[in-house]
Amino acid sequence: MARNKHPEETVNLILEAATRLFMEKGYEHTSIQDIINNLGGLSKGAIYHHFKSKEDILEAVTNRMNEESNKMLEGIRDRRDLTGKEKLKTLFKESVNRSDMDDLFTVAPDMSNNSKLLFSTFRDTVDNVAPEYILPIIEQGISDGSIQTDYPAELAELIVLVANMWTNPMIFNNTMEEYYRKLMVFKQMMEGFGLDIVDDELTDRMEELARLYQKNK
Amino acid sequence: MARNKHPEETVNLILEAATRLFMEKGYEHTSIQDIINNLGGLSKGAIYHHFKSKEDILEAVTNRMNEESNKMLEGIRDRRDLTGKEKLKTLFKESVNRSDMDDLFTVAPDMSNNSKLLFSTFRDTVDNVAPEYILPIIEQGISDGSIQTDYPAELAELIVLVANMWTNPMIFNNTMEEYYRKLMVFKQMMEGFGLDIVDDELTDRMEELARLYQKNK
Repeated sequence: MARNKHPEETVNLILEAATRLFMEKGYEHTSIQDIINNLGGLSKGAIYHHFKSKEDILEAVTNRMNEESNKMLEGIRDRRDLTGKEKLKTLFKESVNRSDMDDLFTVAPDMSNNSKLLFSTFRDTVDNVAPEYILPIIEQGISDGSIQTDYPAELAELIVLVANMWTNPMIFNNTMEEYYRKLMVFKQMMEGFGLDIVDDELTDRMEELARLYQKNK
Repeated sequence: MARNKHPEETVNLILEAATRLFMEKGYEHTSIQDIINNLGGLSKGAIYHHFKSKEDILEAVTNRMNEESNKMLEGIRDRRDLTGKEKLKTLFKESVNRSDMDDLFTVAPDMSNNSKLLFSTFRDTVDNVAPEYILPIIEQGISDGSIQTDYPAELAELIVLVANMWTNPMIFNNTMEEYYRKLMVFKQMMEGFGLDIVDDELTDRMEELARLYQKNK
């Protein structure tokens, strides 16, 4: 491949190849050389010009994957026509109904033994999703009376960790029967916080994605 | 150091030095060479005779640390004088009152940015603590009427993940005020499952350990 005059295009090509390989082979089993082999002749030096390490590439891949998700979360957070509780319900629903979710769950990496991917999901959930999106929604819910809690930041963190990680089929190797039972416990936990927002439509869709993921594993 | 005729003693020496170093410097910042330097002349070959890699040493260190904890959990699980719910309450209380807890929280590693340690805690919680100790206690609670759930395995996993990880000061860098608020949300979550077992004695002791940890960080 000729040296690209547009560095952002090179970065895009690297990230696209890396995303595909991380998903197909797993992060741990993908080498920088594998990424190069998928770039039609880009040199090792060209990659290292943009990224310090494979871990650095993973971070960029993850950031890119999170960008679309963040845009959706932002859109719901900033709506003017919903109560806090309705926003939380909408957010859960749209998170699993996003157009790229079928693709994501088809090629999704197994994170259950991938400490790096697991860690980056964990940090994004705690450092970004909970404070930036869930907390403002819960705070609105407290103001409009649709959500009751004295601890909005902590409740935000707990529910989004459970939703993003504990009910994530990429992280736990559950049978479909176990997965269904987890969703029921998740629903009950939410109801314990006065959040009766986990309905059949949501759990049916989550089961559908889990089935898709398992079929392609 | 002369070649040890008792391999289990050599293994013990390696694990003791490694434990101390992992806790003092962090796992990521400890090299095999650091461990050797703390063993008074043991050769690299002698270490590699017993352990394939630094990760392998971490696994052995973690297993050893978990052994004492498992013995305590086993003792409570197998008692005959308590209901399931009483056992769960006793287990939480004894987990934080164990004699080695003050030491552990004094030299404890910061896990919030250590994906390996975090991952090994996660796997031990899911693969060992939840099914081996918490599940049988919840099942007993269902039999004796002290605990109500249709999903004992999933409830066991969720509560022990939240207790071991979410309220673990080594994993989350919370202020004491935030930590207190997390304990209140944890208490409320447990009550949502009909488990009114998080009392002031428990949360006071958890705060004490968190304070100890923060002071020595």
